[in-house]
Amino acid sequence: MSAPVDVPVALLGYGTVGSAVHRLLEDGAEDIARATGHRLRVVRALVRDPGREREHAPAHGVLTGDFRRIVDDGGVALVAEVMGGVEPTGEYVAELLRRGIPVVTANKQLVARHGPELFEAAAEGGAQLRFEASVCAAIPVIKLLRESLVVTNVHRVLGIVNGTTNFVLGEMEAGSTYADALAEAQRLGYAEADPTEDVSGLDAAAKMAILATVAFGSRVALEGVEVAGIDALRDEHVAAARALEMRVKLVGEAVLVGERVGVRVGPAFVDAHHPLASIEGAFNAVMLQGDAIRELTLEGPGAGGTETASAIVADLVSVLGASEAGFLRDDPVWRSLGALPHGELPSPYYLRLEVEDRAGVLARLAQELASEGVSVARLVQQPGDGHAVLHVVTHEAPAGRVEAALRAIRALPESRGDASALPVVSSRGVEELGWT
Amino acid sequence: MSAPVDVPVALLGYGTVGSAVHRLLEDGAEDIARATGHRLRVVRALVRDPGREREHAPAHGVLTGDFRRIVDDGGVALVAEVMGGVEPTGEYVAELLRRGIPVVTANKQLVARHGPELFEAAAEGGAQLRFEASVCAAIPVIKLLRESLVVTNVHRVLGIVNGTTNFVLGEMEAGSTYADALAEAQRLGYAEADPTEDVSGLDAAAKMAILATVAFGSRVALEGVEVAGIDALRDEHVAAARALEMRVKLVGEAVLVGERVGVRVGPAFVDAHHPLASIEGAFNAVMLQGDAIRELTLEGPGAGGTETASAIVADLVSVLGASEAGFLRDDPVWRSLGALPHGELPSPYYLRLEVEDRAGVLARLAQELASEGVSVARLVQQPGDGHAVLHVVTHEAPAGRVEAALRAIRALPESRGDASALPVVSSRGVEELGWT
Repeated sequence: MSAPVDVPVALLGYGTVGSAVHRLLEDGAEDIARATGHRLRVVRALVRDPGREREHAPAHGVLTGDFRRIVDDGGVALVAEVMGGVEPTGEYVAELLRRGIPVVTANKQLVARHGPELFEAAAEGGAQLRFEASVCAAIPVIKLLRESLVVTNVHRVLGIVNGTTNFVLGEMEAGSTYADALAEAQRLGYAEADPTEDVSGLDAAAKMAILATVAFGSRVALEGVEVAGIDALRDEHVAAARALEMRVKLVGEAVLVGERVGVRVGPAFVDAHHPLASIEGAFNAVMLQGDAIRELTLEGPGAGGTETASAIVADLVSVLGASEAGFLRDDPVWRSLGALPHGELPSPYYLRLEVEDRAGVLARLAQELASEGVSVARLVQQPGDGHAVLHVVTHEAPAGRVEAALRAIRALPESRGDASALPVVSSRGVEELGWT
Repeated sequence: MSAPVDVPVALLGYGTVGSAVHRLLEDGAEDIARATGHRLRVVRALVRDPGREREHAPAHGVLTGDFRRIVDDGGVALVAEVMGGVEPTGEYVAELLRRGIPVVTANKQLVARHGPELFEAAAEGGAQLRFEASVCAAIPVIKLLRESLVVTNVHRVLGIVNGTTNFVLGEMEAGSTYADALAEAQRLGYAEADPTEDVSGLDAAAKMAILATVAFGSRVALEGVEVAGIDALRDEHVAAARALEMRVKLVGEAVLVGERVGVRVGPAFVDAHHPLASIEGAFNAVMLQGDAIRELTLEGPGAGGTETASAIVADLVSVLGASEAGFLRDDPVWRSLGALPHGELPSPYYLRLEVEDRAGVLARLAQELASEGVSVARLVQQPGDGHAVLHVVTHEAPAGRVEAALRAIRALPESRGDASALPVVSSRGVEELGWT
């Protein structure tokens, strides 16, 4: 591989997201060079107060309080806008684009309100404007709509695009009042001190406006979105949803009906069998329905500094990939890792054991498991006809140790039937699992 | 916009997927030209018998039985391989790549078994080889791993990557025997007459080998995957999963532990709260866990002619996008659609109505709904303290008509409390919804 091409990058803003972008570019420099043939180096970062102490501070001379030093410098090839706000951010971005410098932005309000001017500036300068991070952080829905779903005629977008309200609704389903759930969201950092933007549905509306614009190729203004928040939701609705085997979610919906577009955001009942029903906590999800793909659902963290920074870096990488020859020509294989021997892959396990129903058997089973280092998280004993069935869920253990314990258990004189094991996939701790 | 650049395309194969690619390229020509500045035109298609009658047959002279007419023609700029098989397909693809012609393939076995030689040929010819369609059809997981998740250090891939077995397991959970479920899958066209490849886990193993290779950047051979099928699963396992509030799924797992890779496929218990638990029927899903993104889950159809063709076209479009300047420079907005007036967005609705509990009330409510054209799918009446609470789920109706019916109902003398409505999101028919 030839030496990577140096790409001087400027950041507008150096807060939580900006410093995370800087860190990902440094830590991922090898990966980026391999994928794109370029080395991205942060040479300027615009901040209000360059003298202030910061975590993960850039090298001396990188921070500046003067936008002219970025735009007039001549050396900056790529810019990430992570300062937020609409003024003066919009003017900065437009000027950079007009000068032919590609910009990547995380700014939902800027894209939703000033998309037309910014894309005009981009066309004038022949520069790319990318905005993946402006909607649902780490979920790469903009890239998919623009690059993968070109011919699929996406005609409906459904989304849970606000993590704060999704968390609050989940707490309400679990029995909390609206006020308690909101307070808990604030305590965990999911909700702002002033949660209006989230609970009123306005945050979700801006994201749905951007998604509808990209999906249907026609501008949808924020004011065109019909919005209801979760603040008007009543406990009886949550109870009725449960009785109907549904969940209450704040759902964004954008549809193309003939040649007209409709976009709305509001609380809705979601059938438990629908892909959006299982979106838990502060996660986000977007479902795209199109002719050629039926439906495609993307789920992931919709907020967070590193998650947003990851989307910013993906856009920076895509700008390079789309403008140079190197991207994706190469074999995806670039190293030679060893194989983990079969049996070493760890997992919690479900074990089904049939044994004679007499004193001391349980102790012997527990001993066989323990001697292989397999620890029991939960155990349910069901009496059978002269024998007992034991259902065991273990803590994480290597497959080989579980197999060894099973072999020992099968060899016990008290063993009846065939002991079997299956891995358990859970994002909760296995202690929390029930038995109904 | 300047006139699009003409790009002559050849197809290797013209079966279900090949003809669907042809149709999508024709129907989506405007969309592709707008996104990439190119017009893709199928000029050759390699088939065994060019004289046979076909659905959506290409123009006269396009079909050929001679590979030399494709490779020596001089005019073909881009090739989609949709003929399947390993020989002679692999030699054809390698020759095209060595000559600098980019190839897009849907061939899982070819990529899993002959990746090294093919990528070597691609490097030699300086041509791209893309293979999105080889894993999970319409789910664009390869593109995301290679272009969006460059710096996220993906260290675990979990997948339900075989729709046949997912359908069979779902039927077993609903009470079918394994044999009946498999027969039903065959009847619906989800399973082959010989279902060995699917039920043994071998199909899933090939997909997991490709996913692990791309995710970790290190070659994983098919033989390196630890495989168990669903054929050994017993009814007791399905019952135990239900009792534990889990689901039984055929799960593929690829992990990076230190500098070693482990990949396995087999039945597993999946916690009902885990994103993979809700994958229904013949759908597929892939969960990617990485440092910067936590986890990202993609769900969609994992098979089907049009779905696979959609992935092929996405790869063709991406080759053009990555090799020319036009891709994504433009504003995503290209047309000006009208706005659907608020209230016209149709949806099924949940209505909560409180009324006096006396004869004739129900008829009056039904009349108010009917006069707005709102049709009742389900109705549950709960007696209250001198009044009744009615829970109504309607068939699809425009929001405005539902609102109008609610206003009329609120004005009835028998009305008590505040009637309210929420949209219902369901992929099942609302008649099937229960009330517990």
